[in-house]
Amino acid sequence: MENNYRIESDLLGDRKVPVEAYYGVHTLRAMENFRITGTTIASHPELIKAMAAVKQAAARANAQLGLLPQEKCDAIVAACEEIRAGALHDQFVLDVLQGGAGTSTNMNANEVICNRALELMGHQRGEYQYLHPNEDVNMAQSTNDVYPTALHVAVLMALENLIDGMEHLRVAFQAKAEEFADVLKIGRTQLQDAVPMTLGQEFATFARMLQEVVVHLRTQPLLLTEINLGGTAIGTGITAHPDYAALSCAALAEVTGMQLHTAPDLIEATQDCDGFVQVSGLLRRSAVKLSKICNDLRLLSSGPRAGMGEINLPPMQAGSSIMPGKVNPVIPEVVNQIAFEVIGNDLTVTLAAEAGQLQLNAFEPVMADSLFRSIRHLANGCRTLADLCVKGITANHDVLHRNVEQSISLATALNPLIGYKAATAVAAEAYARGETVREVVLRHGLMSETELDDALRYDALTQPRIYAKHHALAPEA
Amino acid sequence: MENNYRIESDLLGDRKVPVEAYYGVHTLRAMENFRITGTTIASHPELIKAMAAVKQAAARANAQLGLLPQEKCDAIVAACEEIRAGALHDQFVLDVLQGGAGTSTNMNANEVICNRALELMGHQRGEYQYLHPNEDVNMAQSTNDVYPTALHVAVLMALENLIDGMEHLRVAFQAKAEEFADVLKIGRTQLQDAVPMTLGQEFATFARMLQEVVVHLRTQPLLLTEINLGGTAIGTGITAHPDYAALSCAALAEVTGMQLHTAPDLIEATQDCDGFVQVSGLLRRSAVKLSKICNDLRLLSSGPRAGMGEINLPPMQAGSSIMPGKVNPVIPEVVNQIAFEVIGNDLTVTLAAEAGQLQLNAFEPVMADSLFRSIRHLANGCRTLADLCVKGITANHDVLHRNVEQSISLATALNPLIGYKAATAVAAEAYARGETVREVVLRHGLMSETELDDALRYDALTQPRIYAKHHALAPEA
Amino acid sequence: MENNYRIESDLLGDRKVPVEAYYGVHTLRAMENFRITGTTIASHPELIKAMAAVKQAAARANAQLGLLPQEKCDAIVAACEEIRAGALHDQFVLDVLQGGAGTSTNMNANEVICNRALELMGHQRGEYQYLHPNEDVNMAQSTNDVYPTALHVAVLMALENLIDGMEHLRVAFQAKAEEFADVLKIGRTQLQDAVPMTLGQEFATFARMLQEVVVHLRTQPLLLTEINLGGTAIGTGITAHPDYAALSCAALAEVTGMQLHTAPDLIEATQDCDGFVQVSGLLRRSAVKLSKICNDLRLLSSGPRAGMGEINLPPMQAGSSIMPGKVNPVIPEVVNQIAFEVIGNDLTVTLAAEAGQLQLNAFEPVMADSLFRSIRHLANGCRTLADLCVKGITANHDVLHRNVEQSISLATALNPLIGYKAATAVAAEAYARGETVREVVLRHGLMSETELDDALRYDALTQPRIYAKHHALAPEA
Amino acid sequence: MENNYRIESDLLGDRKVPVEAYYGVHTLRAMENFRITGTTIASHPELIKAMAAVKQAAARANAQLGLLPQEKCDAIVAACEEIRAGALHDQFVLDVLQGGAGTSTNMNANEVICNRALELMGHQRGEYQYLHPNEDVNMAQSTNDVYPTALHVAVLMALENLIDGMEHLRVAFQAKAEEFADVLKIGRTQLQDAVPMTLGQEFATFARMLQEVVVHLRTQPLLLTEINLGGTAIGTGITAHPDYAALSCAALAEVTGMQLHTAPDLIEATQDCDGFVQVSGLLRRSAVKLSKICNDLRLLSSGPRAGMGEINLPPMQAGSSIMPGKVNPVIPEVVNQIAFEVIGNDLTVTLAAEAGQLQLNAFEPVMADSLFRSIRHLANGCRTLADLCVKGITANHDVLHRNVEQSISLATALNPLIGYKAATAVAAEAYARGETVREVVLRHGLMSETELDDALRYDALTQPRIYAKHHALAPEA
Repeated sequence: MENNYRIESDLLGDRKVPVEAYYGVHTLRAMENFRITGTTIASHPELIKAMAAVKQAAARANAQLGLLPQEKCDAIVAACEEIRAGALHDQFVLDVLQGGAGTSTNMNANEVICNRALELMGHQRGEYQYLHPNEDVNMAQSTNDVYPTALHVAVLMALENLIDGMEHLRVAFQAKAEEFADVLKIGRTQLQDAVPMTLGQEFATFARMLQEVVVHLRTQPLLLTEINLGGTAIGTGITAHPDYAALSCAALAEVTGMQLHTAPDLIEATQDCDGFVQVSGLLRRSAVKLSKICNDLRLLSSGPRAGMGEINLPPMQAGSSIMPGKVNPVIPEVVNQIAFEVIGNDLTVTLAAEAGQLQLNAFEPVMADSLFRSIRHLANGCRTLADLCVKGITANHDVLHRNVEQSISLATALNPLIGYKAATAVAAEAYARGETVREVVLRHGLMSETELDDALRYDALTQPRIYAKHHALAPEA
Repeated sequence: MENNYRIESDLLGDRKVPVEAYYGVHTLRAMENFRITGTTIASHPELIKAMAAVKQAAARANAQLGLLPQEKCDAIVAACEEIRAGALHDQFVLDVLQGGAGTSTNMNANEVICNRALELMGHQRGEYQYLHPNEDVNMAQSTNDVYPTALHVAVLMALENLIDGMEHLRVAFQAKAEEFADVLKIGRTQLQDAVPMTLGQEFATFARMLQEVVVHLRTQPLLLTEINLGGTAIGTGITAHPDYAALSCAALAEVTGMQLHTAPDLIEATQDCDGFVQVSGLLRRSAVKLSKICNDLRLLSSGPRAGMGEINLPPMQAGSSIMPGKVNPVIPEVVNQIAFEVIGNDLTVTLAAEAGQLQLNAFEPVMADSLFRSIRHLANGCRTLADLCVKGITANHDVLHRNVEQSISLATALNPLIGYKAATAVAAEAYARGETVREVVLRHGLMSETELDDALRYDALTQPRIYAKHHALAPEA
Repeated sequence: MENNYRIESDLLGDRKVPVEAYYGVHTLRAMENFRITGTTIASHPELIKAMAAVKQAAARANAQLGLLPQEKCDAIVAACEEIRAGALHDQFVLDVLQGGAGTSTNMNANEVICNRALELMGHQRGEYQYLHPNEDVNMAQSTNDVYPTALHVAVLMALENLIDGMEHLRVAFQAKAEEFADVLKIGRTQLQDAVPMTLGQEFATFARMLQEVVVHLRTQPLLLTEINLGGTAIGTGITAHPDYAALSCAALAEVTGMQLHTAPDLIEATQDCDGFVQVSGLLRRSAVKLSKICNDLRLLSSGPRAGMGEINLPPMQAGSSIMPGKVNPVIPEVVNQIAFEVIGNDLTVTLAAEAGQLQLNAFEPVMADSLFRSIRHLANGCRTLADLCVKGITANHDVLHRNVEQSISLATALNPLIGYKAATAVAAEAYARGETVREVVLRHGLMSETELDDALRYDALTQPRIYAKHHALAPEA
Repeated sequence: MENNYRIESDLLGDRKVPVEAYYGVHTLRAMENFRITGTTIASHPELIKAMAAVKQAAARANAQLGLLPQEKCDAIVAACEEIRAGALHDQFVLDVLQGGAGTSTNMNANEVICNRALELMGHQRGEYQYLHPNEDVNMAQSTNDVYPTALHVAVLMALENLIDGMEHLRVAFQAKAEEFADVLKIGRTQLQDAVPMTLGQEFATFARMLQEVVVHLRTQPLLLTEINLGGTAIGTGITAHPDYAALSCAALAEVTGMQLHTAPDLIEATQDCDGFVQVSGLLRRSAVKLSKICNDLRLLSSGPRAGMGEINLPPMQAGSSIMPGKVNPVIPEVVNQIAFEVIGNDLTVTLAAEAGQLQLNAFEPVMADSLFRSIRHLANGCRTLADLCVKGITANHDVLHRNVEQSISLATALNPLIGYKAATAVAAEAYARGETVREVVLRHGLMSETELDDALRYDALTQPRIYAKHHALAPEA
């Protein structure tokens, strides 16, 4: 039926819009233009909420300046609040990959907010003579300041989730560090047996690696906290009131509860995507750390009989459709894969940032999609790793103990006492004869049993110490 | 209610499986273990169909060898045919990112096929005493040969779509090449005015760039056509009949209609992911080409008044929420973004391939997800670019003509006639005085008007020619 | 002759070392083992100097602790001072790419310092009974703390040069920003004509983009300022005195004049290469910025007649071996290439960092080589761009002025006065009829000439303004 | 003294060129313009030789066409032959990183060849009235066809060396495969013990991985064999004789002994850098394979006592400056690093290829430098790995044997005999009680000792087999 539609028009002509749609003609055209991934921007709810927050802040600033009638402002604000509470996300129907530097997403937001506000004002959807998507909802705005600002806010929102996830994982590692604080083991460099440490120290390292990122994210303000709202089309602020940038930024800070600042140079802030590259670099660093940690977990739990076998990961599922009883490190494996994906996404972000030209970067949608996916997957990966793997890890005390006993590298601890050259000879002989360092030292009478016991004390091996007498101070060897 | 569930068990114990589910306990655990992206493997229907094809082929080979009773084989084959026709994809519920080298996906397929086959045999879901997911559906198989084989088949299926899309785009460019065959324009190197060519030659280049990839994909067998089916756990073929690899490969080739071959070394084929890296490299090459083409389209259509303005892209939507009448190159822009994504995904594939260890690469799921997304987005991008942009491109004849007339680089055509040195002087003077090459040459009487007309003939500028007399042959200048 | 050599030995046996060599047997073996690039570590003088600084600091700390006799310490310190002043770099003969986590480089330093110190003590090279490369020069040290610490110091040294170079370039852009402060031009978004700005604003943006990195590098402490000296083999500090880490760090800070700190967790600091990934990410961000800037410079200077032609780059060399008079943007082009190289090197660093295993990352040499090359090339690129390009840029005032006059996007400035819809109609008509916005507005009597003059005032176009009356406040349109 | 110089001039004016220099004014300016890396193009001798080959071929073609006097042709050819034999490479003084799409390198070649040819003709360097760098040596040429053509030839030359190196390594692995053909070991998937194989099979896999690349490089023509010589400035062949492209290609094929073809579309061939991306992708695939192989070698030799310890790499140098007797896998480590570098370089090539605009890619110099370095380092890495590591590898038979004996995954071999479910129970019990599979099976009487012996026969474990009776055919379990 004809009346299932309303007519809307743009510079290309008239189009029928489904009468129940909150979106309008601009969104309709963009839906038809971008059929790429099948995934809509609603899959990134932070973006939808951030767009609404920006529109809400802009309306408030414009009303404050006397440019937007209060009634219109109130309706816009109310519609935005609903969207921020989760409503109408299904009206954000555009593909995550879209041309136009986010214009379509901005138009989509303008239209949905406008039509919902119209309803709240007692009008029908599409009666733009009472409230207009571009003239009112988009007042003093351009996609080129609204969309980047919303992305900044949305990524900051998403990061909160990641920080929580990483902290959750850090705590899990720290708990294990304490549980294993007294478990002596052999450290390895270049995959070769090195000197002793504790299993607790090994897990504390994992915790510390994550802590650095968490602390950084929590304490060092990201470039993303600088926004270009008020710059309008190219950063010069054309069509905006001189006080608008400051007022809208303050309003947005209040609405979101975030520490936001107007960038010192709005023209630069409109075209340089360094804020996204910076945060992508942080995600990549996190991925590198997580991948290295998972590699270690898989190495340490390799076996059960022909590997290192120092720790046991909790079995989560049958590991093989053919090998009975096989259990695999599936949780670290999925986190490795997340890391690979994040590093790939980071390259995408870099390429898109480099491709910006003159007064705008037209490729922010793919940066946004890449960042949102990286953040979400990393956050889920951290929680999965903590809850389904780290918490259930146990130590193979027998293996750990035997490896230390047999280690040739214990000779290192004798360097300050008998010198590097003599220690090398001990190590070589122990290796060749299949003996322990202790056995060789005692056979050759290089040290007394008491001296040796002291040299190989537990606390002497896993931290610096003072030696009673030092080889280097002896007369020439 | 208790009877909404059936009890299934694995090595970790018993679990309740929803009675309506075709999947079983292994799938259930994997669902719980991998909550990463929220996107299921069913988003890659090629993979589901390819898994079913492999299972169907394996059943046929096992029945041929007398190891699988014909009744079981028939039921398995029938279930697989249904899945290949599109049924039951909603039962493939696992996350695209999963640990375990695809084991969970294989288990998921085993269980769904088994339970559907049980129904077809007149039994209830879960009555594995009549048909067993591992012993029958997975007979003579390991995830480690089934999953890579299915991925090979699935990627090859997906590539068909991409080849079609690229060919569609190539044809669109070729049509424009013919339409613009006689439109003279100035070529540019390093963004500086160079020598003349036709706009048809410019578009023919785009067609040719794509043709190379299409021809390559159509004519050069990819490594993916080599499969490791029959290698079972690590490629040694343990538990498989000596004839199984050949029979199952032949069956799979028949089922899929593809030219497939058993890899010459199954152990190597099980651990080396070079086939995925190769195809990812091809996708990346396609992305580089498409991005370069879109960059050119955006450059050539820059303007309308302060850019190159040589061609017009069809307007697809309003370009700005603030700048009235602005129309942007949104279709090339989205294809640029697809290219950036594909290049990023390619890095992910590379990282995952490099991370394989010893007899298996555990990171194939992320390679699969990356490849499927890249292929689909590229295919959609090619069709979008062809239909919503290229087909509607028009030429700005005035601009094109004026640029040639005024070009200083026309002096190049005089090199063979008056020498590089004299031509350089002509060019410098034309540039400095704001004149044309023709004007300078004639004023200085370097050539007669007739000679000049001949030298600057249309066909003399866009292809090689024979010069009546050649400067280099003249006595010393 | 036999006596051109001295005999040295290690665990693999005896070797002849050239009598004039300051390096010894360990270096000799590593020379033979690593014949990869043909480029020696001496090509990175910062690394050689930093190694000497670390050895000097270690010797001082050991002497302070009473473990190293003062005479030995003095000789070591004197040798290190010489090397830091530039001497003996030709004795650092190892390939920049080497296995062994830097062990060979450390051994090379130990041997060269030892032999030079022996000379200073009045002994012959090779008389290790008086001073030993491992027992004395390497006292309380491991490659695994010395080498990363030296890399941190060396990269920080190299960064000084880059910061200076970037600041030099920033100043050049800023000078142009001031020179062009009053030159009105049309801005462009998505390569399409947008709204006016000044050429000064365009160049100020380039300056600002660089400033952010310079300020960041100058004010935010990099992770590289945390060192793991004192951690010895795996970070537990085995063989080191409990006070050694603090003393050696203080000594190194004094020797280098840098703010250095002992990392809070030496085990973590020994294996996590996040400091290198962080700085590599900063270099990448710089590369992205520089590449974008150079892309813009090439776009703006495209022509001379068939391009944008807004600015002129100074001609630096003949641009073509065939096209007379052609001049190309060769300086921005080389900087683009540096950027591509830096982004590639950054991937190398990331891959190497991810590949660390357990208590050590064995792949620091390739990180070092990549970082040093990136930093040096970026620094040279910045200076080259400033001195050979930016300083000589001139504006094409005619072109810039004409583009503004003819711009359709001037209609944007009328939005607040006549509304987005009416402004769109104006823009469309101007485009269709080849007219200016001014002409269309006046013909239709939409505004008076006085109103229009006011609306299109220079200062009204390049910054926010207050409008006398605002369309949105008018009764419904 | 004044007469140490000769005066040369270009469009920018006069310059003094050192009288002994074979290069001229264009080279001089480029030297001053590009001070980036400090490494000259002479570091890539293949490029210098290929440039000379192209100039030689062009001269012959031009003489054949009667456009270049035979005397000039002879002198040019003679000069080129000298350069191809290794002479005058020190005259190629330009930085490997240079703007201008290779123009400077082409100018450098023109000038050096011209001045050497002048000498051979009995003239002085700089007497260009007798032979001109641009008009004669560069006749019918543009940098834009000469330089890419020379790069194609140079990369193909360099690849020969790589193919040899990889084949050398392949042979080394194959020899080990034969040496270890009968050494049974446990295979591993996901770092967990899997089913048996031979150590020979493991090394044969490494050989096979490399063979695929070698065979591909030897048998599949690369895009690089298509050249654009004759396309001149933008591929239209302006200034060239219609027969020139064919004649010059034939001459170049003869001079180089390579199978070269004129590209079917010279305009496309001039701007699309797909040939470089293709070969870079092949290098990357080689790097991925080599890195995976080296990772495996390091894993298998991890220990000596707390790692897998299945094989011993030959000790090449002392492994630690602190840990006596430690020997590290330094050779695989350096190859890993080469791989990381190559993957980074590949990204550089990709970025440069994507950045091409319109009728030319201006960024070929950085592609060239990246490719040459990657190829050389890979070739050196392959030879180093073969000669200093693989050839000396020995097997730890005790460890290998014990791992098989104790392996729980032997239960896999019982699947077809007792079923997956029963086999799973056996495996679980063996794991829990620290027993072997054999012990558990016999205790439970699941199979007779004879049956078990047969099931676990050596040849039954490392290849497919026929089972006397098959569990799946038994009545329901």
